[in-house]
Amino acid sequence: MNITIVGAGNMARGIATRALVGGHDVTITAKDPDKAVQLADELSEQDHGGQVAAGDESALDRADIVVLAVPFAAAEQLAASYGPRLSGKVLIDISNPVDASLEALVVAPGTSAAERIAAAAGEQVRVVKAFNTTFATTLVSGQVGGTPLDVFIASDDEAARKEVADLVASGGLNPVDVGALKHARELEGFQLLHMALQIREGGHNWASTIKIVAP
Amino acid sequence: MNITIVGAGNMARGIATRALVGGHDVTITAKDPDKAVQLADELSEQDHGGQVAAGDESALDRADIVVLAVPFAAAEQLAASYGPRLSGKVLIDISNPVDASLEALVVAPGTSAAERIAAAAGEQVRVVKAFNTTFATTLVSGQVGGTPLDVFIASDDEAARKEVADLVASGGLNPVDVGALKHARELEGFQLLHMALQIREGGHNWASTIKIVAP
Repeated sequence: MNITIVGAGNMARGIATRALVGGHDVTITAKDPDKAVQLADELSEQDHGGQVAAGDESALDRADIVVLAVPFAAAEQLAASYGPRLSGKVLIDISNPVDASLEALVVAPGTSAAERIAAAAGEQVRVVKAFNTTFATTLVSGQVGGTPLDVFIASDDEAARKEVADLVASGGLNPVDVGALKHARELEGFQLLHMALQIREGGHNWASTIKIVAP
Repeated sequence: MNITIVGAGNMARGIATRALVGGHDVTITAKDPDKAVQLADELSEQDHGGQVAAGDESALDRADIVVLAVPFAAAEQLAASYGPRLSGKVLIDISNPVDASLEALVVAPGTSAAERIAAAAGEQVRVVKAFNTTFATTLVSGQVGGTPLDVFIASDDEAARKEVADLVASGGLNPVDVGALKHARELEGFQLLHMALQIREGGHNWASTIKIVAP
Protein backbone atom coordinates (compact mmCIF):
# COMPACT_ATOMS: atom_id res chain seq x y z
CA MET A 1 0.00 0.00 0.00
CA ASN A 2 0.94 3.64 -0.33
CA ILE A 3 1.07 5.23 3.11
CA THR A 4 1.38 8.99 3.47
CA ILE A 5 2.39 10.21 6.90
CA VAL A 6 1.73 13.83 7.77
CA GLY A 7 4.33 14.93 10.31
CA ALA A 8 8.03 14.26 10.80
CA GLY A 9 8.29 13.75 14.56
CA ASN A 10 8.80 10.70 16.73
CA MET A 11 5.38 9.16 16.06
CA ALA A 12 5.89 9.62 12.30
CA ARG A 13 9.21 7.81 12.63
CA GLY A 14 7.64 4.95 14.59
CA ILE A 15 4.68 4.38 12.30
CA ALA A 16 6.80 4.78 9.17
CA THR A 17 9.22 2.17 10.51
CA ARG A 18 6.40 -0.37 10.99
CA ALA A 19 4.94 0.38 7.52
CA LEU A 20 8.35 -0.05 5.88
CA VAL A 21 8.94 -3.32 7.75
CA GLY A 22 5.61 -4.41 6.29
CA GLY A 23 6.92 -3.69 2.78
CA HIS A 24 4.70 -0.68 2.14
CA ASP A 25 5.78 2.48 0.36
CA VAL A 26 5.84 5.52 2.62
CA THR A 27 5.80 9.23 1.86
CA ILE A 28 6.60 11.70 4.64
CA THR A 29 5.10 15.16 4.31
CA ALA A 30 5.43 17.88 6.91
CA LYS A 31 4.96 21.60 7.49
CA ASP A 32 8.75 21.86 7.54
CA PRO A 33 9.89 20.09 4.33
CA ASP A 34 13.48 19.84 5.58
CA LYS A 35 12.39 17.72 8.51
CA ALA A 36 10.43 15.43 6.19
CA VAL A 37 13.52 15.00 4.00
CA GLN A 38 15.71 14.31 7.00
CA LEU A 39 13.37 11.67 8.44
CA ALA A 40 12.92 10.02 5.03
CA ASP A 41 16.69 9.91 4.54
CA GLU A 42 17.26 8.33 7.95
CA LEU A 43 14.55 5.72 7.41
CA SER A 44 15.85 4.99 3.91
CA GLU A 45 19.30 4.12 5.27
CA GLN A 46 17.77 1.45 7.51
CA ASP A 47 16.62 -0.59 4.49
CA HIS A 48 13.43 -1.94 6.06
CA GLY A 49 11.74 -3.32 2.94
CA GLY A 50 9.40 -0.67 1.59
CA GLN A 51 10.48 2.53 -0.15
CA VAL A 52 10.40 5.87 1.67
CA ALA A 53 10.65 9.44 0.38
CA ALA A 54 9.69 12.93 1.42
CA GLY A 55 6.93 14.60 -0.52
CA ASP A 56 4.59 17.54 -0.66
CA GLU A 57 0.84 17.50 -0.15
CA SER A 58 0.31 15.87 -3.54
CA ALA A 59 1.32 12.64 -1.78
CA LEU A 60 -2.15 12.70 -0.22
CA ASP A 61 -3.67 12.02 -3.64
CA ARG A 62 -1.56 8.89 -4.24
CA ALA A 63 -2.09 7.48 -0.73
CA ASP A 64 -4.20 4.47 0.18
CA ILE A 65 -3.89 5.40 3.86
CA VAL A 66 -3.07 8.82 5.32
CA VAL A 67 -1.76 9.06 8.89
CA LEU A 68 -2.04 12.33 10.80
CA ALA A 69 1.07 12.07 12.99
CA VAL A 70 0.64 15.47 14.61
CA PRO A 71 -0.94 16.64 17.89
CA PHE A 72 -4.73 16.73 18.19
CA ALA A 73 -5.28 20.45 17.57
CA ALA A 74 -3.18 20.38 14.39
CA ALA A 75 -4.77 17.09 13.30
CA GLU A 76 -8.26 18.55 13.57
CA GLN A 77 -7.27 21.53 11.43
CA LEU A 78 -5.55 19.34 8.84
CA ALA A 79 -8.55 16.99 8.71
CA ALA A 80 -10.74 19.95 7.83
CA SER A 81 -8.40 21.28 5.14
CA TYR A 82 -7.47 17.89 3.63
CA GLY A 83 -10.96 16.37 3.93
CA PRO A 84 -12.26 17.23 0.44
CA ARG A 85 -9.26 15.61 -1.31
CA LEU A 86 -9.32 12.43 0.83
CA SER A 87 -12.67 11.14 -0.42
CA GLY A 88 -12.84 7.35 -0.01
CA LYS A 89 -9.41 7.16 1.61
CA VAL A 90 -8.53 5.86 5.06
CA LEU A 91 -7.40 8.61 7.44
CA ILE A 92 -5.75 7.44 10.68
CA ASP A 93 -6.04 9.60 13.79
CA ILE A 94 -3.36 8.70 16.36
CA SER A 95 -3.88 11.67 18.68
CA ASN A 96 -4.32 11.88 22.44
CA PRO A 97 -6.31 14.96 23.42
CA VAL A 98 -4.84 15.26 26.92
CA ASP A 99 -4.44 18.36 29.05
CA ALA A 100 -0.99 19.47 30.18
CA SER A 101 -1.39 17.92 33.65
CA LEU A 102 -2.36 14.50 32.21
CA GLU A 103 -5.42 14.61 34.46
CA ALA A 104 -8.19 14.96 31.85
CA LEU A 105 -9.06 14.85 28.18
CA VAL A 106 -9.66 18.19 26.47
CA VAL A 107 -12.55 16.82 24.39
CA ALA A 108 -16.04 16.82 25.92
CA PRO A 109 -17.29 13.75 27.83
CA GLY A 110 -19.00 11.34 25.48
CA THR A 111 -16.89 12.26 22.48
CA SER A 112 -13.30 11.80 21.32
CA ALA A 113 -10.52 13.31 19.25
CA ALA A 114 -11.28 10.73 16.57
CA GLU A 115 -14.94 11.74 16.31
CA ARG A 116 -13.95 15.41 16.20
CA ILE A 117 -11.49 14.66 13.41
CA ALA A 118 -14.10 12.62 11.53
CA ALA A 119 -16.52 15.54 11.77
CA ALA A 120 -13.84 17.92 10.51
CA ALA A 121 -12.84 15.66 7.60
CA GLY A 122 -16.39 15.02 6.41
CA GLU A 123 -18.41 11.88 5.79
CA GLN A 124 -16.56 10.91 2.60
CA VAL A 125 -13.36 10.21 4.58
CA ARG A 126 -12.97 6.82 6.29
CA VAL A 127 -11.53 7.84 9.67
CA VAL A 128 -9.84 5.19 11.83
CA LYS A 129 -8.44 5.54 15.35
CA ALA A 130 -5.19 3.60 15.78
CA PHE A 131 -1.69 3.87 17.29
CA ASN A 132 -2.79 6.17 20.13
CA THR A 133 -1.68 3.74 22.86
CA THR A 134 1.73 2.93 21.35
CA PHE A 135 4.57 5.26 22.27
CA ALA A 136 7.03 6.26 19.54
CA THR A 137 10.04 4.34 20.80
CA THR A 138 8.01 1.15 21.17
CA LEU A 139 6.83 1.49 17.57
CA VAL A 140 10.41 1.76 16.35
CA SER A 141 11.28 -1.57 17.99
CA GLY A 142 7.82 -3.07 17.47
CA GLN A 143 7.78 -4.74 20.86
CA VAL A 144 8.03 -4.27 24.60
CA GLY A 145 9.69 -6.94 26.72
CA GLY A 146 9.74 -9.29 23.75
CA THR A 147 6.00 -9.15 23.08
CA PRO A 148 4.57 -7.45 19.96
CA LEU A 149 2.61 -4.26 20.56
CA ASP A 150 -1.19 -4.33 20.58
CA VAL A 151 -2.63 -1.69 18.23
CA PHE A 152 -6.26 -0.90 19.07
CA ILE A 153 -8.37 0.00 16.03
CA ALA A 154 -11.75 1.78 16.00
CA SER A 155 -13.79 2.95 13.02
CA ASP A 156 -17.35 3.03 11.79
CA ASP A 157 -16.05 1.62 8.48
CA GLU A 158 -15.48 -2.11 8.91
CA ALA A 159 -13.40 -2.44 5.71
CA ALA A 160 -11.19 0.42 6.88
CA ARG A 161 -10.62 -1.34 10.21
CA LYS A 162 -9.55 -4.40 8.24
CA GLU A 163 -7.15 -2.40 6.04
CA VAL A 164 -5.50 -0.84 9.06
CA ALA A 165 -5.37 -4.24 10.79
CA ASP A 166 -3.53 -5.60 7.74
CA LEU A 167 -1.08 -2.68 7.85
CA VAL A 168 -0.49 -3.28 11.56
CA ALA A 169 -0.02 -7.03 11.18
CA SER A 170 2.34 -6.62 8.21
CA GLY A 171 4.61 -4.56 10.46
CA GLY A 172 4.82 -7.32 13.06
CA LEU A 173 2.29 -5.83 15.48
CA ASN A 174 -0.95 -7.27 16.87
CA PRO A 175 -4.14 -5.53 15.65
CA VAL A 176 -7.07 -5.41 18.09
CA ASP A 177 -10.37 -4.41 16.46
CA VAL A 178 -12.53 -2.70 19.08
CA GLY A 179 -15.40 -1.73 16.79
CA ALA A 180 -17.12 1.60 16.21
CA LEU A 181 -15.34 4.96 16.14
CA LYS A 182 -17.14 6.05 19.32
CA HIS A 183 -14.90 3.59 21.18
CA ALA A 184 -11.99 5.93 20.47
CA ARG A 185 -13.22 7.62 23.67
CA GLU A 186 -12.30 4.55 25.68
CA LEU A 187 -8.94 4.23 23.92
CA GLU A 188 -8.10 7.88 24.54
CA GLY A 189 -9.32 7.68 28.14
CA PHE A 190 -7.24 4.67 29.09
CA GLN A 191 -4.21 6.11 27.31
CA LEU A 192 -4.59 9.23 29.49
CA LEU A 193 -4.00 6.97 32.52
CA HIS A 194 -1.16 5.19 30.73
CA MET A 195 0.53 8.51 29.93
CA ALA A 196 0.19 9.70 33.53
CA LEU A 197 1.85 6.46 34.69
CA GLN A 198 4.96 7.34 32.67
CA ILE A 199 6.02 10.37 34.65
CA ARG A 200 5.23 9.57 38.25
CA GLU A 201 7.64 8.05 40.75
CA GLY A 202 8.68 4.64 39.49
CA GLY A 203 7.00 5.41 36.16
CA HIS A 204 7.73 3.76 32.86
CA ASN A 205 9.44 6.69 31.07
CA TRP A 206 7.47 6.28 27.82
CA ALA A 207 8.68 2.71 27.29
CA SER A 208 5.59 0.68 28.30
CA THR A 209 2.59 -0.45 26.30
CA ILE A 210 -1.04 -1.44 26.91
CA LYS A 211 -1.60 -5.08 26.14
CA ILE A 212 -4.47 -7.55 26.32
CA VAL A 213 -2.64 -10.56 27.72
CA ALA A 214 -4.24 -13.94 27.00
CA PRO A 215 -3.19 -17.42 28.15
CA MET B 1 -6.63 -7.12 57.61
CA ASN B 2 -10.26 -8.09 57.98
CA ILE B 3 -11.88 -8.20 54.56
CA THR B 4 -15.65 -8.53 54.21
CA ILE B 5 -16.88 -9.51 50.78
CA VAL B 6 -20.51 -8.84 49.93
CA GLY B 7 -21.60 -11.41 47.37
CA ALA B 8 -20.92 -15.11 46.84
CA GLY B 9 -20.44 -15.33 43.09
CA ASN B 10 -17.40 -15.82 40.90
CA MET B 11 -15.86 -12.40 41.60
CA ALA B 12 -16.30 -12.94 45.35
CA ARG B 13 -14.48 -16.25 44.97
CA GLY B 14 -11.64 -14.65 43.01
CA ILE B 15 -11.07 -11.70 45.33
CA ALA B 16 -11.44 -13.86 48.43
CA THR B 17 -8.83 -16.25 47.06
CA ARG B 18 -6.31 -13.42 46.60
CA ALA B 19 -7.04 -11.99 50.07
CA LEU B 20 -6.59 -15.41 51.67
CA VAL B 21 -3.33 -15.98 49.78
CA GLY B 22 -2.25 -12.66 51.26
CA GLY B 23 -2.93 -14.01 54.76
CA HIS B 24 -5.95 -11.81 55.43
CA ASP B 25 -9.10 -12.92 57.24
CA VAL B 26 -12.15 -12.96 54.99
CA THR B 27 -15.85 -12.95 55.77
CA ILE B 28 -18.33 -13.74 53.00
CA THR B 29 -21.80 -12.26 53.37
CA ALA B 30 -24.54 -12.58 50.77
CA LYS B 31 -28.25 -12.13 50.23
CA ASP B 32 -28.50 -15.92 50.14
CA PRO B 33 -26.71 -17.08 53.32
CA ASP B 34 -26.45 -20.66 52.04
CA LYS B 35 -24.34 -19.51 49.10
CA ALA B 36 -22.06 -17.57 51.44
CA VAL B 37 -21.60 -20.68 53.60
CA GLN B 38 -20.92 -22.83 50.56
CA LEU B 39 -18.28 -20.47 49.14
CA ALA B 40 -16.62 -20.04 52.54
CA ASP B 41 -16.50 -23.83 52.99
CA GLU B 42 -14.95 -24.35 49.57
CA LEU B 43 -12.33 -21.63 50.13
CA SER B 44 -11.58 -22.98 53.59
CA GLU B 45 -10.71 -26.39 52.20
CA GLN B 46 -8.06 -24.83 49.97
CA ASP B 47 -6.00 -23.69 52.97
CA HIS B 48 -4.67 -20.49 51.42
CA GLY B 49 -3.28 -18.83 54.54
CA GLY B 50 -5.93 -16.50 55.95
CA GLN B 51 -9.11 -17.63 57.69
CA VAL B 52 -12.46 -17.53 55.90
CA ALA B 53 -16.01 -17.81 57.21
CA ALA B 54 -19.53 -16.87 56.20
CA GLY B 55 -21.21 -14.14 58.17
CA ASP B 56 -24.17 -11.83 58.36
CA GLU B 57 -24.14 -8.07 57.89
CA SER B 58 -22.50 -7.56 61.27
CA ALA B 59 -19.27 -8.53 59.48
CA LEU B 60 -19.36 -5.06 57.96
CA ASP B 61 -18.66 -3.58 61.38
CA ARG B 62 -15.52 -5.68 61.94
CA ALA B 63 -14.12 -5.09 58.46
CA ASP B 64 -11.13 -2.95 57.53
CA ILE B 65 -12.09 -3.23 53.88
CA VAL B 66 -15.52 -4.06 52.41
CA VAL B 67 -15.76 -5.33 48.82
CA LEU B 68 -19.05 -5.04 46.93
CA ALA B 69 -18.77 -8.13 44.71
CA VAL B 70 -22.19 -7.70 43.11
CA PRO B 71 -23.40 -6.09 39.85
CA PHE B 72 -23.50 -2.30 39.61
CA ALA B 73 -27.21 -1.77 40.26
CA ALA B 74 -27.11 -3.89 43.42
CA ALA B 75 -23.83 -2.31 44.49
CA GLU B 76 -25.30 1.18 44.27
CA GLN B 77 -28.27 0.14 46.43
CA LEU B 78 -26.05 -1.58 48.98
CA ALA B 79 -23.72 1.43 49.12
CA ALA B 80 -26.69 3.58 50.05
CA SER B 81 -28.00 1.22 52.71
CA TYR B 82 -24.58 0.28 54.19
CA GLY B 83 -23.08 3.78 53.92
CA PRO B 84 -23.92 5.04 57.42
CA ARG B 85 -22.28 2.05 59.14
CA LEU B 86 -19.14 2.14 56.99
CA SER B 87 -17.85 5.49 58.25
CA GLY B 88 -14.06 5.67 57.81
CA LYS B 89 -13.87 2.26 56.17
CA VAL B 90 -12.57 1.42 52.72
CA LEU B 91 -15.33 0.30 50.32
CA ILE B 92 -14.17 -1.31 47.08
CA ASP B 93 -16.34 -1.00 43.98
CA ILE B 94 -15.46 -3.64 41.38
CA SER B 95 -18.43 -3.13 39.07
CA ASN B 96 -18.68 -2.65 35.33
CA PRO B 97 -21.78 -0.67 34.38
CA VAL B 98 -22.10 -2.12 30.88
CA ASP B 99 -25.21 -2.53 28.77
CA ALA B 100 -26.33 -5.97 27.62
CA SER B 101 -24.80 -5.54 24.15
CA LEU B 102 -21.38 -4.56 25.59
CA GLU B 103 -21.51 -1.48 23.36
CA ALA B 104 -21.86 1.27 25.97
CA LEU B 105 -21.73 2.11 29.66
CA VAL B 106 -25.06 2.69 31.40
CA VAL B 107 -23.69 5.57 33.49
CA ALA B 108 -23.72 9.06 31.99
CA PRO B 109 -20.67 10.35 30.06
CA GLY B 110 -18.22 12.04 32.41
CA THR B 111 -19.12 9.91 35.40
CA SER B 112 -18.65 6.31 36.52
CA ALA B 113 -20.12 3.51 38.58
CA ALA B 114 -17.53 4.27 41.25
CA GLU B 115 -18.55 7.91 41.54
CA ARG B 116 -22.21 6.90 41.69
CA ILE B 117 -21.43 4.42 44.45
CA ALA B 118 -19.39 7.02 46.33
CA ALA B 119 -22.32 9.43 46.13
CA ALA B 120 -24.69 6.72 47.38
CA ALA B 121 -22.41 5.70 50.26
CA GLY B 122 -21.77 9.23 51.48
CA GLU B 123 -18.65 11.27 52.11
CA GLN B 124 -17.65 9.39 55.26
CA VAL B 125 -16.94 6.23 53.25
CA ARG B 126 -13.56 5.86 51.53
CA VAL B 127 -14.60 4.47 48.14
CA VAL B 128 -11.96 2.80 45.94
CA LYS B 129 -12.32 1.42 42.41
CA ALA B 130 -10.37 -1.80 41.94
CA PHE B 131 -10.61 -5.29 40.40
CA ASN B 132 -12.94 -4.16 37.58
CA THR B 133 -10.54 -5.25 34.83
CA THR B 134 -9.69 -8.67 36.30
CA PHE B 135 -12.02 -11.51 35.37
CA ALA B 136 -12.99 -14.00 38.07
CA THR B 137 -11.05 -17.00 36.78
CA THR B 138 -7.88 -14.94 36.41
CA LEU B 139 -8.20 -13.79 40.02
CA VAL B 140 -8.46 -17.39 41.21
CA SER B 141 -5.14 -18.22 39.53
CA GLY B 142 -3.63 -14.76 40.10
CA GLN B 143 -1.98 -14.69 36.69
CA VAL B 144 -2.49 -14.92 32.94
CA GLY B 145 0.17 -16.54 30.79
CA GLY B 146 2.55 -16.60 33.75
CA THR B 147 2.41 -12.88 34.44
CA PRO B 148 0.71 -11.47 37.59
CA LEU B 149 -2.49 -9.51 37.03
CA ASP B 150 -2.45 -5.72 37.04
CA VAL B 151 -5.09 -4.32 39.42
CA PHE B 152 -5.89 -0.69 38.62
CA ILE B 153 -6.79 1.38 41.68
CA ALA B 154 -8.57 4.77 41.75
CA SER B 155 -9.75 6.78 44.76
CA ASP B 156 -9.82 10.33 46.02
CA ASP B 157 -8.39 8.99 49.32
CA GLU B 158 -4.66 8.45 48.85
CA ALA B 159 -4.30 6.34 52.01
CA ALA B 160 -7.17 4.13 50.86
CA ARG B 161 -5.42 3.60 47.52
CA LYS B 162 -2.34 2.52 49.45
CA GLU B 163 -4.31 0.09 51.66
CA VAL B 164 -5.89 -1.53 48.61
CA ALA B 165 -2.50 -1.64 46.86
CA ASP B 166 -1.11 -3.49 49.90
CA LEU B 167 -4.02 -5.95 49.78
CA VAL B 168 -3.44 -6.51 46.06
CA ALA B 169 0.33 -6.97 46.42
CA SER B 170 -0.06 -9.36 49.36
CA GLY B 171 -2.12 -11.62 47.10
CA GLY B 172 0.62 -11.78 44.48
CA LEU B 173 -0.90 -9.24 42.10
CA ASN B 174 0.52 -5.97 40.73
CA PRO B 175 -1.22 -2.82 42.00
CA VAL B 176 -1.37 0.14 39.58
CA ASP B 177 -2.37 3.42 41.24
CA VAL B 178 -4.13 5.61 38.65
CA GLY B 179 -5.09 8.44 40.98
CA ALA B 180 -8.42 10.14 41.58
CA LEU B 181 -11.77 8.33 41.66
CA LYS B 182 -12.89 10.16 38.51
CA HIS B 183 -10.43 7.96 36.62
CA ALA B 184 -12.76 5.02 37.32
CA ARG B 185 -14.47 6.27 34.14
CA GLU B 186 -11.41 5.39 32.09
CA LEU B 187 -11.06 2.01 33.83
CA GLU B 188 -14.71 1.17 33.22
CA GLY B 189 -14.54 2.41 29.64
CA PHE B 190 -11.54 0.34 28.64
CA GLN B 191 -12.94 -2.70 30.41
CA LEU B 192 -16.08 -2.32 28.26
CA LEU B 193 -13.84 -2.88 25.21
CA HIS B 194 -12.04 -5.73 26.96
CA MET B 195 -15.35 -7.43 27.77
CA ALA B 196 -16.56 -7.07 24.18
CA LEU B 197 -13.32 -8.71 23.00
CA GLN B 198 -14.19 -11.85 25.00
CA ILE B 199 -17.21 -12.89 23.02
CA ARG B 200 -16.43 -12.07 19.41
CA GLU B 201 -14.91 -14.46 16.88
CA GLY B 202 -11.49 -15.50 18.10
CA GLY B 203 -12.24 -13.86 21.45
CA HIS B 204 -10.56 -14.58 24.75
CA ASN B 205 -13.48 -16.31 26.54
CA TRP B 206 -13.06 -14.37 29.82
CA ALA B 207 -9.49 -15.57 30.30
CA SER B 208 -7.47 -12.46 29.31
CA THR B 209 -6.34 -9.47 31.31
CA ILE B 210 -5.39 -5.83 30.73
CA LYS B 211 -1.74 -5.24 31.47
CA ILE B 212 0.72 -2.36 31.31
CA VAL B 213 3.72 -4.17 29.87
CA ALA B 214 7.09 -2.56 30.59
CA PRO B 215 10.58 -3.57 29.40
